[in-house]
Amino acid sequence: MPGDFDAATAVRFRGGDLDAGPVTYDAEVMPGWDILGNANGGYLMAIAARAMADAAGRPPLTLTAHYLSPGSVGSHTIEVGRVRAGRRLATMTGSLVNADTGREVIRLLGSFGSSDPDGPFRVDAAPPDIPAYDDCLIDTDGDDPNAQPLPELQRRLAMRLAPDSVGFRSGAPVGRAEVSGWFAFADDSLIDEFGLMLAADAFPPAVFNSGLPVSWVPTVEMTVHLRGLPAPGPLATVFRTRFISGGMLEEDGEVWDSAGNLVALSRQLALAPRPI
Amino acid sequence: MPGDFDAATAVRFRGGDLDAGPVTYDAEVMPGWDILGNANGGYLMAIAARAMADAAGRPPLTLTAHYLSPGSVGSHTIEVGRVRAGRRLATMTGSLVNADTGREVIRLLGSFGSSDPDGPFRVDAAPPDIPAYDDCLIDTDGDDPNAQPLPELQRRLAMRLAPDSVGFRSGAPVGRAEVSGWFAFADDSLIDEFGLMLAADAFPPAVFNSGLPVSWVPTVEMTVHLRGLPAPGPLATVFRTRFISGGMLEEDGEVWDSAGNLVALSRQLALAPRPI
Repeated sequence: MPGDFDAATAVRFRGGDLDAGPVTYDAEVMPGWDILGNANGGYLMAIAARAMADAAGRPPLTLTAHYLSPGSVGSHTIEVGRVRAGRRLATMTGSLVNADTGREVIRLLGSFGSSDPDGPFRVDAAPPDIPAYDDCLIDTDGDDPNAQPLPELQRRLAMRLAPDSVGFRSGAPVGRAEVSGWFAFADDSLIDEFGLMLAADAFPPAVFNSGLPVSWVPTVEMTVHLRGLPAPGPLATVFRTRFISGGMLEEDGEVWDSAGNLVALSRQLALAPRPI
Repeated sequence: MPGDFDAATAVRFRGGDLDAGPVTYDAEVMPGWDILGNANGGYLMAIAARAMADAAGRPPLTLTAHYLSPGSVGSHTIEVGRVRAGRRLATMTGSLVNADTGREVIRLLGSFGSSDPDGPFRVDAAPPDIPAYDDCLIDTDGDDPNAQPLPELQRRLAMRLAPDSVGFRSGAPVGRAEVSGWFAFADDSLIDEFGLMLAADAFPPAVFNSGLPVSWVPTVEMTVHLRGLPAPGPLATVFRTRFISGGMLEEDGEVWDSAGNLVALSRQLALAPRPI
């Protein structure tokens, strides 16, 4: 039986011939993967990525999405084009469109192919220094009447925020634009490349912990590098924003598996609107 | 009079109507912006970006290029499509094609718009700690008979590598995948958003200083965030590779201007081929 996330990101080939032009897939954006009604950006990327990977016949290595309009529950179509298919890589375009409104939600460009486990190996970094999963906080609404409501999305996930990262929920941000914690599915499903895209965008924005009065961080663009399939178990993640300037901010993410391997790097550019 | 780089990245509108579909530009990939005959990836991105920005009527904010085939000197066409034009942002596609061979060289996706100098400002980072421009090394072939030949590209630039960063040229890499130094044009032209794309890809690969026997680092994808127009003067840059795994490596770049402001963030995913 597929896990909740697999079912919620399923795509169905509708038709077309890649040799002649774009092909089309159908998908449903499902309820429960949203924040205040807007579907999560990593979730939307995962749906489109599934169609692109299916058409490419290979898993994603690097995928960029530009966010054009909010995603909402309902029928969507994904148009997938092939830019080039070589021996090692296939480069594909994607477009996720709301079938009811006709509005394009995200446009994508990515390269697909298999990683090479026998290639050179050197890592000059370490997993984030966060307490063990069981010692991190279950992220619930809790008893604090001043706490911000928990997004619906979190009910599908068994995420745990590091103790340093939860301050913003009760108006006591740590004063550094950083959020770290553990990512897992509530139904304990294994996490594949598509789940990593959700992991890269499921945590509260790091800037919420900066102390700046920023309440809304619309993503312009997100790029995720998929660096390997995770070993089973919760993923250790850390997200940082170093530069809030020019009306924009970046958020850099690292996702590490339980075996201590980096499995995804993410970076997004978001608008940093002035406080209301 | 335009500077060398402006002239070497000029584009001419050929025809089309964005409201009806893609529009076309002509450009020449010029000699002297290459490494062993392959046009520099940042240079190619800048040519395509000029056409995309012209069609968008706005400067680039974030641009992603996927590298499909080597760029070589000669006539090229750029096809530019508009995904969406909103009040704040325009999202555009681009495709740079060699006009002689018909081969596509790079495919691009980006968002264009103006930055907001009055937005919130917070920076939790500092420019790279490198010696002053005049104290860094002029990067010439020098007298060392074992030194690697200097790419033609460097003759167009007044780059200076930090003393820590030049070891790889004489077989003495510092043992850390990092390269830092100063970027400027040899003709002292001002550097705009398009010049920043070159700055993000003009330095020797950081992995050359790792000590791993990697001689060739083909870029799969590069994304550049343009965070502001540089103040006049050389740009301080640093490039780091932290993860060499799965047959791939990322390279993260920071570009800072003479006023101490971050002006570009770059990240690329490259293949890490096994040593020959």
